[in-house]
Amino acid sequence: MRVLGIDPGLNIIGYGIIETNGFKVVDYGVITTPKTMSISERLFTIYKACCELMETFKPDEVAFEELFYNTNITTGIPVAEARGALIVACKQYLNKLFEYTPLQIKQALTGNGRAEKKQMQFMVKSILGLNATPKPDDAADALAVAICHIQTSSVMSDNRM
Amino acid sequence: MRVLGIDPGLNIIGYGIIETNGFKVVDYGVITTPKTMSISERLFTIYKACCELMETFKPDEVAFEELFYNTNITTGIPVAEARGALIVACKQYLNKLFEYTPLQIKQALTGNGRAEKKQMQFMVKSILGLNATPKPDDAADALAVAICHIQTSSVMSDNRM
Repeated sequence: MRVLGIDPGLNIIGYGIIETNGFKVVDYGVITTPKTMSISERLFTIYKACCELMETFKPDEVAFEELFYNTNITTGIPVAEARGALIVACKQYLNKLFEYTPLQIKQALTGNGRAEKKQMQFMVKSILGLNATPKPDDAADALAVAICHIQTSSVMSDNRM
Repeated sequence: MRVLGIDPGLNIIGYGIIETNGFKVVDYGVITTPKTMSISERLFTIYKACCELMETFKPDEVAFEELFYNTNITTGIPVAEARGALIVACKQYLNKLFEYTPLQIKQALTGNGRAEKKQMQFMVKSILGLNATPKPDDAADALAVAICHIQTSSVMSDNRM
């Protein structure tokens, strides 16, 4: 089975595709939208790029990181709009969408819900048998969501969305 | 020219279509999604319903109400996600999308940025030459966004999105 992990955002969206059989990395990278674009152009660019990922890699399940705000709500609105665009794109191709909180993802990879970024990156590299930490960070974060989903989906079903 | 006004939301989304020539109402109503649906199902339902509006009524321009939060950010995230789904749906059909703040809409219809709901509904009814206030409120709100756009688009271009 093939899992697509997504780290949502507006400027930069991380994605990572993993084969559950042996935690084999299929691909990872980022979708970016320039600030010079209007918000509607950026949302549509994100939507189209996500549709392209779905068509190219044909994942069986998609796992999203949940949004989390403790700071500025005004900057949060366009990020949530972008997450809506991503969800619509994925839902067009399959029904199996899941979401995990940052805490759940850290817990799944390191056993510690408050793990540091470096520790998370080390675990992503180790679990996937890579020679180096995937770059940029957003791609590594997306791979972490996919790993979290693979490790927890057999025991949990509350993360379905 | 034909303008589609949208009052975004997750549970209920108002829409109203107006011909600029004589402020003639073409149609108005609401898109609703039941709370029993998963969030991804709701977002996709909203996206599809909005695509259907675009195909049925073929508007030349779309005007959105801007989201405004001064209360609960947690409930705000899915509403913003729904707005993202609506923007992507509209952008697929045309480039002319605009957005207005609640203050701008009230100002355009009544000359008072702090107008009460009743006063707004009275103006929607009067400007459109209707016998009664359009129901539900969300549909009247969407018609107000469309009226605001028609009245201000000739003088302002900052509302393009």
